Amino acid sequence: MPLDYPTPFNELTRELRRLPGLGPRSAERCALWLLGHKDARPEPLAAAILAASASLHPCQKCGFFAVSELCEICLQPSRQGREICIIEQSTDILPLERSGVFQGLYHSLGGRLAPLDHIGPAQLRIEPLLERIRIEKPTEIILALSADVEGEATTNYLTEILAPFHIQTTRIAHGLPAGGGLEHADQLTLQRALTGRRPA
Amino acid sequence: MPLDYPTPFNELTRELRRLPGLGPRSAERCALWLLGHKDARPEPLAAAILAASASLHPCQKCGFFAVSELCEICLQPSRQGREICIIEQSTDILPLERSGVFQGLYHSLGGRLAPLDHIGPAQLRIEPLLERIRIEKPTEIILALSADVEGEATTNYLTEILAPFHIQTTRIAHGLPAGGGLEHADQLTLQRALTGRRPA
Repeated sequence: MPLDYPTPFNELTRELRRLPGLGPRSAERCALWLLGHKDARPEPLAAAILAASASLHPCQKCGFFAVSELCEICLQPSRQGREICIIEQSTDILPLERSGVFQGLYHSLGGRLAPLDHIGPAQLRIEPLLERIRIEKPTEIILALSADVEGEATTNYLTEILAPFHIQTTRIAHGLPAGGGLEHADQLTLQRALTGRRPA
Repeated sequence: MPLDYPTPFNELTRELRRLPGLGPRSAERCALWLLGHKDARPEPLAAAILAASASLHPCQKCGFFAVSELCEICLQPSRQGREICIIEQSTDILPLERSGVFQGLYHSLGGRLAPLDHIGPAQLRIEPLLERIRIEKPTEIILALSADVEGEATTNYLTEILAPFHIQTTRIAHGLPAGGGLEHADQLTLQRALTGRRPA
């Protein structure tokens, strides 16, 4: 009977396989490395997982990762009372931050409207958003949701319910991505790029 | 100033990046998943890493992963006093086991001769091998090292020092891999496939 790895090894492989992008082979390779390679440091990895998991939680205001009640972004004095950028998930914040263009605050909805998955307005962080807008009185609300059907539906829904606040509400531009040639753009992208054209 | 993730997050990403095959992007994706996804279970992963790292160590005899002094393979009564298959690393054992052809014992050298990296016979588990052969008196010694220059050199070295035992010593066949057409085989593989030809 051919032998298998010992149980603790297989349990480690099974947990590693749950990570996104790790298949059975790469999980086994990671486990072999963790247990056999002289440069591997299994204990610090385990400690980092536990420390991050215990100390990080969603910011009460915007939903970004925070070590205290509010995240570093919401705590910055220079960002108060400026624009609020609405995104679908807290993981959308860092890409926007790294673009270096936006200096305001964020608000993660925690998803988007998806009636087929039973995700309606009540399942999203829309009530806390309205509450924030009432209190913080932002100079502008920027809708930065995905450029697909559900993202569009969520954008339209928000545009409607935000109208009574009489605050300038914008949506990020859709069009040709940087470095993208016309020949590689799909029809919808070209339609939006043409519709959204601006004076040269 | 654009914000970054909180420190515990970045420490987790840094540790994850050390895993083989995980670049900066995939490490960040794994960290985001571990901390944000509802199906993620960071604690069991950390526990599995610690448990495997604490409970597994090399088998005293063959070098495979073991929870006690000897591994499951070396403990099987049916394998005693049979062939000993010499491999470079303990991670070579499972692929051979999974082939389902071999029913004997293994001996991992912990590497191969590499004079340029200052790895000579003293750096490999050759003395324990000779000791085992003296005690266990295997029916055959099978050399299953890599089919490259260093593997060949190690095979030749072992053939020489094993000769005085007067035990049948064989090496695994080199030739065309399964499913490999002649047009894709390199010159050396074809040379070896021709040299190693057998009656049809």
